Amino acid sequence: MAMKKFINDPANLTSELLEGYVQAYGDKVALAGDRTVVRAKCKDESKVAIVTLGGAGHEPALSGFVGEGMLDASVVGDIFAAPGPPPVFEALKLMDRPAGVLFVVLNHAGDLMSANMAMDMASKQGLNVRQVLTHEDIAPGADSPAEDRRGLVGCVPLYKIAGAAAEAGKDLDEVCRVAEKFNAQMATLAVAIKTATHPQSGEEIFALADDEMEVGMGQHGEAGTGRSQMMTADQTARVMVEQLAKAVKAGKGDKVLLIINGAGATTLMEQFIIFRAARKVLAEAGIEVARSLVGEYLTVQEMAGFQMFVAKMDDELLSLWDAPCDTPYLTVR
Amino acid sequence: MAMKKFINDPANLTSELLEGYVQAYGDKVALAGDRTVVRAKCKDESKVAIVTLGGAGHEPALSGFVGEGMLDASVVGDIFAAPGPPPVFEALKLMDRPAGVLFVVLNHAGDLMSANMAMDMASKQGLNVRQVLTHEDIAPGADSPAEDRRGLVGCVPLYKIAGAAAEAGKDLDEVCRVAEKFNAQMATLAVAIKTATHPQSGEEIFALADDEMEVGMGQHGEAGTGRSQMMTADQTARVMVEQLAKAVKAGKGDKVLLIINGAGATTLMEQFIIFRAARKVLAEAGIEVARSLVGEYLTVQEMAGFQMFVAKMDDELLSLWDAPCDTPYLTVR
Repeated sequence: MAMKKFINDPANLTSELLEGYVQAYGDKVALAGDRTVVRAKCKDESKVAIVTLGGAGHEPALSGFVGEGMLDASVVGDIFAAPGPPPVFEALKLMDRPAGVLFVVLNHAGDLMSANMAMDMASKQGLNVRQVLTHEDIAPGADSPAEDRRGLVGCVPLYKIAGAAAEAGKDLDEVCRVAEKFNAQMATLAVAIKTATHPQSGEEIFALADDEMEVGMGQHGEAGTGRSQMMTADQTARVMVEQLAKAVKAGKGDKVLLIINGAGATTLMEQFIIFRAARKVLAEAGIEVARSLVGEYLTVQEMAGFQMFVAKMDDELLSLWDAPCDTPYLTVR
Repeated sequence: MAMKKFINDPANLTSELLEGYVQAYGDKVALAGDRTVVRAKCKDESKVAIVTLGGAGHEPALSGFVGEGMLDASVVGDIFAAPGPPPVFEALKLMDRPAGVLFVVLNHAGDLMSANMAMDMASKQGLNVRQVLTHEDIAPGADSPAEDRRGLVGCVPLYKIAGAAAEAGKDLDEVCRVAEKFNAQMATLAVAIKTATHPQSGEEIFALADDEMEVGMGQHGEAGTGRSQMMTADQTARVMVEQLAKAVKAGKGDKVLLIINGAGATTLMEQFIIFRAARKVLAEAGIEVARSLVGEYLTVQEMAGFQMFVAKMDDELLSLWDAPCDTPYLTVR
């Protein structure tokens, strides 16, 4: 049976998708080397550079957010696989500048290993690089150690917050400070209802029964906190919002950023229905949805499900969120 | 078996999704009545209004393109079903103004019936409304009568072109002229590889064997021009581009707008790979991809497949395409 995806040789997936991506957004992004996406213009070396790394197959993440006001460079691996340390080190060296580099890493074993080895190499060469590790998945419990919690869609708003601080000319200490402040105030929970096909192996990445859903499943099919019968949109939203609000200690009078991130096959129709329900549950607790995103930001091929993200926002974070940005997949003006 | 979608009572799908949509984009859109989406601001009545209608279930289309530089109002029906004539007439009346209204209708039996009845009512009340019917599907053959050809994703760039002319203060004759000029120069071909579930009935909207694809399938599962074995991305792109370029009579030295529109479950990864391949085939024929879009603009629930759209562009159309717009799902600045 032929794989039901529009691909060519599975070995060339990443290079072909990046070729198409930089052609589609040639005014905003370009390739530096084979698999590092950089800004097409605005090479303002007086500002802190924001760099990230991660596997392909999650489009538009992560490289969809390279551009003014967000990332300066994104190093791309193979499908669901971290890039090796050498291209990561090369990207850090390319972005090196007196203002320094903030390196945003999602907590996944492969990403972290490559990132740490590249950081060692950078440090030996005297590059001025600081790392922020995102680990906002609350599936293992909001109080479990940071190393047990995965980095999910929260990297995207973190790029926005840190990127706005960098664009405003803040120094590396200050960019790190706001990034870590936001990092400490965010939480994500994922839910999956239908599996996806790995576009290289042709295998399904997990299995769920026809009437089951799983809350807490990771973005490569990693096990979550337990399976249940399918719930309605309103029930699902309530279960997730209550855990997320508790994790970020949001209560009456607080303002939050709420993101509903579609996994791939979950329609925007469903995402709007979930968003509406989540907003209602938050309102009951006196929590205001001050800002929001609804759509596909970090996907898992054609998996059905979504990630719900909540971050507690203060005036400083809101003002960074509202600063202009112009990237292929997030624009604020 | 529970339906594997995040919904509540299937009878409330449209109202719940619209509630979520206008909450998510409250700075840009609002509801007028139950199911008509209008701009939240910019009620500039000196300009021609652009109005459309269509069923829900295709999000972000059609209402995702209400906003500055594109639509003024979108009248939404039930899932895959046209709204009835009364709400359409009400929307035309609401948008009525001395500058007049351009009413963009996609060629589908239900949409056209409601549109024509609403036009009759509008005409009896002396409203100044002109209709443009999109019918750019070339699956039945590019030379087949307009009434046999469906309106597909081409409505989206047509809203952009007509909307830019309206925003520039052009009169109704002129807005109609550019809309019809663009309408005559555009062509779309759809391809489907996996079906979707109707979110109200729970039924699959069509059936395809595990190794089959169908070129020309409509956006509600209407039959296409024939089934074939799955092809690679490059082969699929070549078959489609050749038909489209011929249909719009594009040749050496011509400039085109190329859109790859994901149907729902087809990943952005695949869309970029197809885009890259389509661009290559066009380049071989000396045709320049002067502008492009890649992403989900008009979806069919979680169907896997995509629509490929090509329009021949001249300087006037390029300049209208480049004019600023600010809608939830298309921004040009």
